[in-house]
Amino acid sequence: MSAITVAIVGASGYTGAELVRLILEHPHAKITALAAKTRAGEPLARVFPQFAGRSPGELLLEEFVAESIARRARVAFCALPHGESAPAVAALVEQGVTVIDLSADFRLHDEAAYASWYGTASHPHHPALQLLGQAVYGLPERHREKLVGAGLVAAPGCYPTATILAIAPLLDARLVSPVGLIVDAKSGVTGAGRAPSSTTHFSEIGEGIRPYKVAGSHRHTPEMEQELSLAAGADVRLTFTPHLVPMSRGILACVYATPTDPTRPAAAYHEALVARYEGEPFVTVLPPGHLPDTAFVRGSNRAHVAVAYDARVKRVIAMCAIDNLVKGASGQAVQCMNLALGLPEPAGLGGVALFP
Amino acid sequence: MSAITVAIVGASGYTGAELVRLILEHPHAKITALAAKTRAGEPLARVFPQFAGRSPGELLLEEFVAESIARRARVAFCALPHGESAPAVAALVEQGVTVIDLSADFRLHDEAAYASWYGTASHPHHPALQLLGQAVYGLPERHREKLVGAGLVAAPGCYPTATILAIAPLLDARLVSPVGLIVDAKSGVTGAGRAPSSTTHFSEIGEGIRPYKVAGSHRHTPEMEQELSLAAGADVRLTFTPHLVPMSRGILACVYATPTDPTRPAAAYHEALVARYEGEPFVTVLPPGHLPDTAFVRGSNRAHVAVAYDARVKRVIAMCAIDNLVKGASGQAVQCMNLALGLPEPAGLGGVALFP
Amino acid sequence: MSAITVAIVGASGYTGAELVRLILEHPHAKITALAAKTRAGEPLARVFPQFAGRSPGELLLEEFVAESIARRARVAFCALPHGESAPAVAALVEQGVTVIDLSADFRLHDEAAYASWYGTASHPHHPALQLLGQAVYGLPERHREKLVGAGLVAAPGCYPTATILAIAPLLDARLVSPVGLIVDAKSGVTGAGRAPSSTTHFSEIGEGIRPYKVAGSHRHTPEMEQELSLAAGADVRLTFTPHLVPMSRGILACVYATPTDPTRPAAAYHEALVARYEGEPFVTVLPPGHLPDTAFVRGSNRAHVAVAYDARVKRVIAMCAIDNLVKGASGQAVQCMNLALGLPEPAGLGGVALFP
Amino acid sequence: MSAITVAIVGASGYTGAELVRLILEHPHAKITALAAKTRAGEPLARVFPQFAGRSPGELLLEEFVAESIARRARVAFCALPHGESAPAVAALVEQGVTVIDLSADFRLHDEAAYASWYGTASHPHHPALQLLGQAVYGLPERHREKLVGAGLVAAPGCYPTATILAIAPLLDARLVSPVGLIVDAKSGVTGAGRAPSSTTHFSEIGEGIRPYKVAGSHRHTPEMEQELSLAAGADVRLTFTPHLVPMSRGILACVYATPTDPTRPAAAYHEALVARYEGEPFVTVLPPGHLPDTAFVRGSNRAHVAVAYDARVKRVIAMCAIDNLVKGASGQAVQCMNLALGLPEPAGLGGVALFP
Repeated sequence: MSAITVAIVGASGYTGAELVRLILEHPHAKITALAAKTRAGEPLARVFPQFAGRSPGELLLEEFVAESIARRARVAFCALPHGESAPAVAALVEQGVTVIDLSADFRLHDEAAYASWYGTASHPHHPALQLLGQAVYGLPERHREKLVGAGLVAAPGCYPTATILAIAPLLDARLVSPVGLIVDAKSGVTGAGRAPSSTTHFSEIGEGIRPYKVAGSHRHTPEMEQELSLAAGADVRLTFTPHLVPMSRGILACVYATPTDPTRPAAAYHEALVARYEGEPFVTVLPPGHLPDTAFVRGSNRAHVAVAYDARVKRVIAMCAIDNLVKGASGQAVQCMNLALGLPEPAGLGGVALFP
Repeated sequence: MSAITVAIVGASGYTGAELVRLILEHPHAKITALAAKTRAGEPLARVFPQFAGRSPGELLLEEFVAESIARRARVAFCALPHGESAPAVAALVEQGVTVIDLSADFRLHDEAAYASWYGTASHPHHPALQLLGQAVYGLPERHREKLVGAGLVAAPGCYPTATILAIAPLLDARLVSPVGLIVDAKSGVTGAGRAPSSTTHFSEIGEGIRPYKVAGSHRHTPEMEQELSLAAGADVRLTFTPHLVPMSRGILACVYATPTDPTRPAAAYHEALVARYEGEPFVTVLPPGHLPDTAFVRGSNRAHVAVAYDARVKRVIAMCAIDNLVKGASGQAVQCMNLALGLPEPAGLGGVALFP
Repeated sequence: MSAITVAIVGASGYTGAELVRLILEHPHAKITALAAKTRAGEPLARVFPQFAGRSPGELLLEEFVAESIARRARVAFCALPHGESAPAVAALVEQGVTVIDLSADFRLHDEAAYASWYGTASHPHHPALQLLGQAVYGLPERHREKLVGAGLVAAPGCYPTATILAIAPLLDARLVSPVGLIVDAKSGVTGAGRAPSSTTHFSEIGEGIRPYKVAGSHRHTPEMEQELSLAAGADVRLTFTPHLVPMSRGILACVYATPTDPTRPAAAYHEALVARYEGEPFVTVLPPGHLPDTAFVRGSNRAHVAVAYDARVKRVIAMCAIDNLVKGASGQAVQCMNLALGLPEPAGLGGVALFP
Repeated sequence: MSAITVAIVGASGYTGAELVRLILEHPHAKITALAAKTRAGEPLARVFPQFAGRSPGELLLEEFVAESIARRARVAFCALPHGESAPAVAALVEQGVTVIDLSADFRLHDEAAYASWYGTASHPHHPALQLLGQAVYGLPERHREKLVGAGLVAAPGCYPTATILAIAPLLDARLVSPVGLIVDAKSGVTGAGRAPSSTTHFSEIGEGIRPYKVAGSHRHTPEMEQELSLAAGADVRLTFTPHLVPMSRGILACVYATPTDPTRPAAAYHEALVARYEGEPFVTVLPPGHLPDTAFVRGSNRAHVAVAYDARVKRVIAMCAIDNLVKGASGQAVQCMNLALGLPEPAGLGGVALFP
């Protein structure tokens, strides 16, 4: 089998670099084009010195031109900001390229939800409405079958990935109520991207922790609600509190839920996770008594999940740790590509977490 | 007025050093004795080089002997581990010394609660039962009047301080239900003390975040419940999830609560905090739209509190950031000393947070 | 004595905020004006939330107008970028205000050196040449007498402060050669200021160390050479290698020097430092066998110095740790103000380092 | 070709875990035994949760028994503390196992040097003298030919690796003098191992930098001198100053040297490095004007080297950044194994650095 040709659009950002790192280890894929608006014309190794002295560090970043990309790539990953991504995706799809989009543009199936959360005065509606119906939400643990052969995949957000992996199986099994879910999540700073700003400045961020966009103002909220409603078979509305933690990588989600039957034994929640994730290549249910720690998934595509039951107050606490740039972005996107193209699902994603 | 003489028992730990730092800035107090089991005989500046070359860096740490301390100190701060503290406290109280205890030994008024949470097979009961009734819970914002003239103060835990400051006013005012409270809190590593362990090892802790002692297993739970039950006038049971964050100082508590009246305007929660904390010397209610960040209280005795209302799901999120070693321990202990001795409450605690 | 009125020009940066923090603890000074170009019109507490809820958090930052400042302030600290500072300083001096300038604009006495290191095509010469002769280099340990009564003080750079404090006494005493000095120094990220950039972005800086501006390209080089030449009584040329370390505050300088007499006993170097710094309020010579650590001076105006002699290769290693924002900038500036105005030199600078 | 069977002795430490991580990616090797004194009997995934849920996380750590290891492994990596390693190595070599030793026990060829730097009152001499002559110093860039077929390899220390890679080519080419070398190096905290101590405690180490073991007291000194003397063809004595930096991984070495001909053009030093390292699989000479940063080699076996010439003072500054656990330990050990066994040298070491 000749290698799948891959383009990365948005290669000057962190998820772009992470895609390069992963594809280099992929036995069936190779990079043939790197596009990036801001650093076009520069070799990759100048933009990301970790590629200095090794292939494809010498590859030049180029301006995005869909036709040109399509001539050289069977698959394209789009790692562009939301809003910017949709037109590029549409152009690539039109050229027959399989697209894995890492932006938020195609994650919400409901046009009204998109308009409500992402619409602006100048752009009230979705920019590529005709594609909304085609896009598959790229969480393999939830939509594996639909991902096989998909032409357009919307890779999930980092917070939704961790949240859904933690709690969806308990909603599937009707062990917890769809009402009153609370998601308290903590993210490393790479989640904010590579563009410098006062909220990512080292001296502002180091040695402190803070919530942001609380009380229903973070745009990952509808994405969680969409997928958890599917799991619950009921309309889920939740509270989501994201935090910024002084570390580069990692997301930890703690989801608080109410049991549907408070007399159920505590072990039932753990057992439901174990049953649900049996055979999953990238989800590990930690043994009872063990709790997730983002340090142990750093750099890997693995999710560590666990659940605890607080019998004193009848509360379920489901937890998940991932690397926001891997299982929360680029690794999951590769996993989706593998499914879309009929490759072995774990191909290129075997690396163990870099700890410490 | 001649200076109040102060002893610090447990001076080789972080809260001990922080007490020295604060007392040095106190206009009405001076350190006359430093006791520490492990480093007795060494000068303070060898144990804590930040005191090198300045007073009282040359002061020798000594073995604890209550009579000897009592001869030289009007007040003693006990910064010992729980269980070790009670006998020292009892001996000092017997000698007529005013004691501010930073351990957990005298925080719970209910003997049975103490036995349940702190009792061990070899020590099932409280070690100084006769003093339980005398101890005042040292949170000035809740018990200021009782602290005036107190002979024994139990300075609160760091998590309870942040949690109670965030949510108690809303319980006081019956704006939120006493049922179903969830506390998701995040702490810097100094909360684990100065003794090396695998859970405080730099390379294990850096670049990661993790929960620990979840689902009702952390001993600060009954302390929060005791104080919040007083606020609510009803029995409060809550879920508490502590996390360890890769930073040295700081605690952020997010408390999730259900409004008693879901039709109440969102502004009411903020207004209740403003009303409650008007005139408080060390609590700042942040303006609407601003959220607490532990970086902005580092090194100071100040608490930053804020509240948000998630109208979509009818949920109140009350938040508080403090420095766990200052407002969460040594600074609050000095504040209690000031009240106990009739000194101006803010004396020695005027320092602005060290940011960045 | 009525309080000295103080203006801070450049109050929206880190050294500006640090000046506010320190002046608040000063027994003889008070802030009457805060100027800042970028955030003019905003209250200080919005620009720096550590001042939320306390004075002078409500004070508004204003546009810089020298006449207006002069009406309200006896002293002005200028914490502006180099080049921008000189005109502001000149205007304030003309109005009779005593100025402590934290920029590099008045540090070099030699006009040609200034032109060579700071001149640009459009601005080849010093912008306020007439004042160069008046400015006193604000390192009290070297120029205390000239600082008394000074009308214009050029506060030293952070790297020069640490370097000069470490090695100048050994040059004074002719214990080391003026030839072949090497300065290998390491700085926290606040040294780069508050403006976001790719070199201060959390995820680029965390978990790594790197040199920058090596081999005679850093502008602090001529400043070190000027002062060390004065110490040595000979022309000093040195190699300077700065590094960026993943921490917010602190500078550590290691200076490598050749002994003038290789048969001299190792203890002589330590003794020379002890003799030189006896009575200095802010310099601590660590005991033999102890080495400086920036963690133990964080937030304080103290310098920790030490010297080691490598007898195997006949090399002297002189070391100094300071907080770059305090002894390396704002604290030293306050120390200079105290001397300039005849106040007690340590006034307002008594705080112990915040460790941990 | 059937896979090479590999044992890791000392599998509960950081270099042990890193060996497991790397061998898992190795196309020609597989792990068959893990030995560790302290955690014997536990599965690897409990000791290192990054292996939870994936092979060989379930493998049990076992007590070290040479005969038992020899029955199952063709090659053994010994990642034990110095002194403890030599007897284990001797036993394994006697059993015919090829040994890659990561300790310091076999690095020094000179028995007297070993005794001087490592001897103690109770153990004055080398514990396995007969093997000293057989051991090959495992720096492939210096001793590739001798490593082919070697039965015992002494993998270099982390500081020596970075230092030798930076400066040896300039000594080889006689561009710099062997006299007066200064090595100022900076290390992440994993260099101190996994055992908790006050010098690796998060709150003691974070937000600070400090030198340690200065002036000829660090045991990596003789190792550097041995190898650089070989390069120079002359006896090299140097000053070495190690520092501890608040990061987990990475070493940066800055080597200061005197040019043999001060009139030589600055470009000559860079060209010498480029010439020397042409074709080397794991050494990248950065382009002129670029400087090494440990962040860009984290997790990879790559070394980034650069050299600058300070024409003002006639000084050469050679720099190298590596990951101390990979090129400075476990990765280099795998590279040596590949050479010793005739495998492709880069096998299993292709991973790109994890940045950010």
